[in-house]
Amino acid sequence: MRVMLRVAYDGTAYSGWQLQPNAVTIEQRLNEALEDLFGMPMAVIGASRTDAGVHALGNAAVFDVDTRMPASKIAYALNTRLPEDIRVVNSSEVSPDFHPRHTESVKTYEYKIWNDTFPNPTVRLYSHFEYGEIDVGRMAEAAEYLVGEHDFTSFCSAGTQVENKVRTVFSVDIKRDGAMITIRVTGNGFLYNMVRIIAGTLLKVGQGAMEPADVQKALDGRDRQLAGPTAPARGLTLVKISYGENG
Amino acid sequence: MRVMLRVAYDGTAYSGWQLQPNAVTIEQRLNEALEDLFGMPMAVIGASRTDAGVHALGNAAVFDVDTRMPASKIAYALNTRLPEDIRVVNSSEVSPDFHPRHTESVKTYEYKIWNDTFPNPTVRLYSHFEYGEIDVGRMAEAAEYLVGEHDFTSFCSAGTQVENKVRTVFSVDIKRDGAMITIRVTGNGFLYNMVRIIAGTLLKVGQGAMEPADVQKALDGRDRQLAGPTAPARGLTLVKISYGENG
Repeated sequence: MRVMLRVAYDGTAYSGWQLQPNAVTIEQRLNEALEDLFGMPMAVIGASRTDAGVHALGNAAVFDVDTRMPASKIAYALNTRLPEDIRVVNSSEVSPDFHPRHTESVKTYEYKIWNDTFPNPTVRLYSHFEYGEIDVGRMAEAAEYLVGEHDFTSFCSAGTQVENKVRTVFSVDIKRDGAMITIRVTGNGFLYNMVRIIAGTLLKVGQGAMEPADVQKALDGRDRQLAGPTAPARGLTLVKISYGENG
Repeated sequence: MRVMLRVAYDGTAYSGWQLQPNAVTIEQRLNEALEDLFGMPMAVIGASRTDAGVHALGNAAVFDVDTRMPASKIAYALNTRLPEDIRVVNSSEVSPDFHPRHTESVKTYEYKIWNDTFPNPTVRLYSHFEYGEIDVGRMAEAAEYLVGEHDFTSFCSAGTQVENKVRTVFSVDIKRDGAMITIRVTGNGFLYNMVRIIAGTLLKVGQGAMEPADVQKALDGRDRQLAGPTAPARGLTLVKISYGENG
């Protein structure tokens, strides 16, 4: 059967999701736990290959296995074999041809900014620190330009090898809770570094270094130079991936 | 002059506040940073000697120094000399006889419990994980018995060497935000492990293993055995210490 895992992790200690030589990754730790559980080499297919330092509450991965263990119990069996900073929060059977990257999905990311006089050590690994005034009203105004179907060429890393850079962003919500500013972005697909560049751009707008309307100019110009910087990885969390009827 | 520091830290990597041989502590890191800044051996006096793994947003410490540097700038100078998991969030001059443990104060602690089917890796170091149902209404009912002036013998570690175990708790507030339950305790002084034993006891009440009225019985009985277990250190954060006119 094909089993889908929902995976949460603290990305701090990892060189991202994807297998690499000479570096520890989330994918590697999952493969090792599966191998230990089922006694044979195993390989997951991940939904989102998050970068080093990026976190997840609900990344997804599938693998195939011939076992009498109920799919729903696999999460528990894997967690006893995984380090504390990786948890499988759900396991379920999916159809044998389900592919987590080739199936339409809605992804939700959060980018967190700790905006205070000093960094807070207890949130430092899960947010980006910025002192000085940030106007979240301006950020929300700028965010509206991003909603909808657009060519996001200006909002992905310059070297990105994908031909079609049109994506649909369903919502970009900004909220402030004390010193913590959260940018929540939902869409049907994201280019490389897209959420971090959106966050870096909205931050520049909030700080007054860019105008809200500059976001429209950046979209129109299709040039990475027109958007703001790529915000640091630690502020980013992949919150969830929804696959319609597949959950 | 005597300078008071307000100190925030992630206690995960430290053997608590207090200096010890063969272990790294918050106090040691502060003394080293001060020594590096002022070029001579320095020693802080801390307000609360938090245990290994306990966090702080506003612990306090004082030290004496003869310098032309304005007291308010010392925080910045120390932060460039401290690791990322310790931040001095304020520095100010206080009167030369101010002692952070012998001055009346109001302390606020938070104990966090992540109550979900699975642990969340991104909050694991700052909360205690419990699955299964927890009734926060019962916890709040039990908490009311703790408010006021009481002999807290049952709510401190059995070996505690303090004669007078009467303390005043001003408030114990319980709130749930999604999977995160926060117990916020304010009082004029706390015995060793008192907040962690309060948290462990309220948790047992929330889980149905103790009755709210058992808290009154525990207070009356003055016997550590009558209260619940000591909840794990990682869930505890010293939020702030207020010294009246000294801030």
